[in-house]
Amino acid sequence: MASIILKRTNHKMPLVGLGLWKIRNSHCADMVYNAIKVGYRLFDGAADYGNEKEAGEGVRRALEEGIVKREELFITSKLWNTNHAHDHAKAAAKMQLELWGLDYFDLYLVHFPVALAYVDPKHRYPPEWWGDDKKSVNLQNTPFQETWGAMEELVDEGLAKNIGVSNVGGVLLVDILSYARIEPQVLQVELHPYLTQQPLLNLAKTLGIAVTAYSSFGPQSYVELGFKVDAKPLFEQDPIVKAAITRKKEPAQILLRWATQKGIAVIPKTNNPSRLLTNLDCTSFDLTEAEIQFISGLNINFRLNNPADIDPRLAIFA
Amino acid sequence: MASIILKRTNHKMPLVGLGLWKIRNSHCADMVYNAIKVGYRLFDGAADYGNEKEAGEGVRRALEEGIVKREELFITSKLWNTNHAHDHAKAAAKMQLELWGLDYFDLYLVHFPVALAYVDPKHRYPPEWWGDDKKSVNLQNTPFQETWGAMEELVDEGLAKNIGVSNVGGVLLVDILSYARIEPQVLQVELHPYLTQQPLLNLAKTLGIAVTAYSSFGPQSYVELGFKVDAKPLFEQDPIVKAAITRKKEPAQILLRWATQKGIAVIPKTNNPSRLLTNLDCTSFDLTEAEIQFISGLNINFRLNNPADIDPRLAIFA
Repeated sequence: MASIILKRTNHKMPLVGLGLWKIRNSHCADMVYNAIKVGYRLFDGAADYGNEKEAGEGVRRALEEGIVKREELFITSKLWNTNHAHDHAKAAAKMQLELWGLDYFDLYLVHFPVALAYVDPKHRYPPEWWGDDKKSVNLQNTPFQETWGAMEELVDEGLAKNIGVSNVGGVLLVDILSYARIEPQVLQVELHPYLTQQPLLNLAKTLGIAVTAYSSFGPQSYVELGFKVDAKPLFEQDPIVKAAITRKKEPAQILLRWATQKGIAVIPKTNNPSRLLTNLDCTSFDLTEAEIQFISGLNINFRLNNPADIDPRLAIFA
Repeated sequence: MASIILKRTNHKMPLVGLGLWKIRNSHCADMVYNAIKVGYRLFDGAADYGNEKEAGEGVRRALEEGIVKREELFITSKLWNTNHAHDHAKAAAKMQLELWGLDYFDLYLVHFPVALAYVDPKHRYPPEWWGDDKKSVNLQNTPFQETWGAMEELVDEGLAKNIGVSNVGGVLLVDILSYARIEPQVLQVELHPYLTQQPLLNLAKTLGIAVTAYSSFGPQSYVELGFKVDAKPLFEQDPIVKAAITRKKEPAQILLRWATQKGIAVIPKTNNPSRLLTNLDCTSFDLTEAEIQFISGLNINFRLNNPADIDPRLAIFA
């Protein structure tokens, strides 16, 4: 299986995994189980996705049936914004491991560089962006350095094999590196032909940090959520359609190959079992350099997942 | 004189000042002196501009002749990247005050959220982006929190009345606020109709941080430096030309009013004494809301000053 070597631990991270965002709870255990059966080894979860218990059930079923060994899997989860204080971060990771029924995560990421006021999981879980039941956003003064210190302790305690960050831009990434005892191994960001993020990719490459792309299909996932998106679907864009026809592949596979061929990991989600295989198959062919450039030419720095749309204080990409 | 009240100290910061970047050393003292004579009160300098001594001469001449009192002036300077370590930051500010011949700065800004290896000013000053004489960029692991601690001590010691940051995006700004004992008062960023920065403005407004725009004329300053810029000059753009003709003003004044009318301070530079007055005059008229919107419609998120062009590790805007 195509993979990336994480520089500081020498662990292998698969290039293609299954993203668990928006996988319905009722389908999640079966989806994960079936994905393992057809060859998936990386699962990308998060506290915020609200389906860690079900994902864990799928994993455990596959383990119990001997389809796969734990050490062959690469399980990623993420710390939510309401748990950035040191003690909350430690407790949250442990609670999430319990939900999964696992002893450790292969990768644990800080989901967003945003500290929100603590919400007791007994009261509401996952709490999303809301500090209370009235959907107000309550920021909390927790320096990122405090959160990162807790992440490092999770590695010390064997609860996370690798740690990293998500939705973090260059300026904070370099600041984190200035105080990190254990450096971030992975940066997970929105990345697709409408948002190619070349300067951030150059930075990550220079720093030896692996990159995982989310929302590889661009607007698609957000349209599904009912958002109105003012951009042509990537699946209908000429450079992608042409490459798909030429290679007898689906546009989705072209989009995934556009990233993976550059050494960027992808975590496409699907609620459709038949798409599991075609998505996983995206490293079985190569695009030409010209095709990659043509697709990259679609870049319009168009970001779909921007918390500033929720509250101006969440302008982490400004 | 039109001004902004800085929220935490209640000090007044003039809305229009003279930017000292690229003002030639041979002209700088006279330019500053003449600017004071025609009514300028804010001067925006920096270690990196290499003309603080001459700027100080102009200020002192005006003070000695009784044209203005020290407390009527608002002198800004900036800490350079090679001095981010705590002790270097303190020493640099003191050295810069000596160059100016001043007891305090009204505002002292961290110029860039980038820590470069220390360069002894006796060896080379200002050192620009280079760690040695071969123009290599040497990063230094200094957390921004350490630098900010030194900035706060400058306030404690009366050497800076206000402190702030420049070239800092939302994610770092919020992180700074999480640990700041003395919060940033001012954020200075590139801002013009090709880079309107609305999300960052919304954030700064919500946080009560004043904004100063630099490069108000867009590509103009960079073309002067010999850079090739792939964008039509703002002075020739329809919305600006039309507003200028309608109001019998110069395009430069329209650009400055576009910012100042939104409460954003501007620091236009000129090497031309006759332009001093027209630039300062930019708050004597108003644009209509429609004109402002029309001008803002030119936004293409086009950034001229991006250190990532020097080295991929300097991708502070990625």
